[in-house]
Amino acid sequence: MARDESGGGRTVTSKVLALLAAFEHGPSAQSLSELAAAADVPLPTAHRLAAELVAWGALERTPEGRYVVGLRLWEVAQHAGRQLRDAARPYLQDLFSLTQETAHLAIREGHEALYIDRIYGSKRVPRASRVGGRLPLHATAVGKVLLAYEDRWLQEAYVAERLDPVTARTHVHPQRLLEELAAIRERGFATTYEEVRVGSCSVAVPVLTADGRAPASIGLVMASAQADQMPRHLPTLRGIAARIAPSAARWAGAAPPR
Amino acid sequence: MARDESGGGRTVTSKVLALLAAFEHGPSAQSLSELAAAADVPLPTAHRLAAELVAWGALERTPEGRYVVGLRLWEVAQHAGRQLRDAARPYLQDLFSLTQETAHLAIREGHEALYIDRIYGSKRVPRASRVGGRLPLHATAVGKVLLAYEDRWLQEAYVAERLDPVTARTHVHPQRLLEELAAIRERGFATTYEEVRVGSCSVAVPVLTADGRAPASIGLVMASAQADQMPRHLPTLRGIAARIAPSAARWAGAAPPR
Repeated sequence: MARDESGGGRTVTSKVLALLAAFEHGPSAQSLSELAAAADVPLPTAHRLAAELVAWGALERTPEGRYVVGLRLWEVAQHAGRQLRDAARPYLQDLFSLTQETAHLAIREGHEALYIDRIYGSKRVPRASRVGGRLPLHATAVGKVLLAYEDRWLQEAYVAERLDPVTARTHVHPQRLLEELAAIRERGFATTYEEVRVGSCSVAVPVLTADGRAPASIGLVMASAQADQMPRHLPTLRGIAARIAPSAARWAGAAPPR
Repeated sequence: MARDESGGGRTVTSKVLALLAAFEHGPSAQSLSELAAAADVPLPTAHRLAAELVAWGALERTPEGRYVVGLRLWEVAQHAGRQLRDAARPYLQDLFSLTQETAHLAIREGHEALYIDRIYGSKRVPRASRVGGRLPLHATAVGKVLLAYEDRWLQEAYVAERLDPVTARTHVHPQRLLEELAAIRERGFATTYEEVRVGSCSVAVPVLTADGRAPASIGLVMASAQADQMPRHLPTLRGIAARIAPSAARWAGAAPPR
């Protein structure tokens, strides 16, 4: 590996990636010293690498001299999961048009539901998710669905770890969560009530493959005052999921979760 | 700069970025030798750097052993332009709901209109753009609007370069294009008729800042048989553009086009 003189054995590539990773959890605009600290590289190294990233367009500088993720990196990254997102988008749009509620498409990435698309209008409930954002599997309806269709051993491994509450209503009892997952798989949908955010509830169904797996899930988030409306949306959710299913199956075959 | 032993003076960072750049114009899934060729690096170098990118999640491997852009890179990159995209999304959604036509949000990046968001239903016209995709400024309605609100010198520099036709109807006459841009600015909207794709037409308006600049534009693409409907959508387009304008102004102030 080509090693940098200043970094104690870490490769240059790992430092470049660490600079990008600073934006995963940090603010959208960061100073050079914030970047250097997050990436754990010396300031001169951060300066030099950031300059190369800016020259290419992976980062951009704001008028205040802070660094933000660049549009060129965004363009390249649009290729990730594009097959599924592009194929699902019009159906997700139909789901929104039919329900007028915020519609999500999610996949499982490790212990979390990764939101790969979201459609919402200007009269939406306060949001708890964003595209490219993640939430714990056990706290969200899309996440519970994804977990419910996983193998039993994976579910047991999941609940064996600490189940952090997101709100006071998040279900964090391991055995009861396992029972809930079994019930979700039995009936084919999951709901949450103020488990992610006080004031909102959600309902989700799996996007099923022919062999009974759920590589993706779709869901609606609505005001908790509308919770009694959730069952009414199930036929629509299932119809839309069936239309996304062929693309999800192709996508899952071509690029399984890492 | 930390230089790789095998690459004749190019930095490691530049090679890592060149591997990512292979996905800008190449297929979504590429073999190692395709990546190496596109990035112009020796195969062993490509192998080593790709392994690091896969370990981090910037790339992923398909079951067939090809490389695709990874979801972790996609997540990080969602931060780019997020302020504008997130703020504009619900209004773009309203634009779609009101018109039922494919709705776009674009910004200028160099000589091209970069599509940063798009809303469409399952009954859409065959698409000519994709999110993260680009089209020449002179061929599209959103692009013509963006160019029309630029300074005269930039317009002249643009038309002085070769204006490639996308279809037989693309306007490629420099002087007439300049006159068209002046007319667009005068009346506040642009239209195209089969200039990007036979069978579709488009109409766009600027998202204006207080000082009369247009950091973004929004537009509708519809079947060319519906071309006579374009003027009917102008009040809606202008109303939606006005609602996006404050976010666009903040965004343009914070991160000007590179």
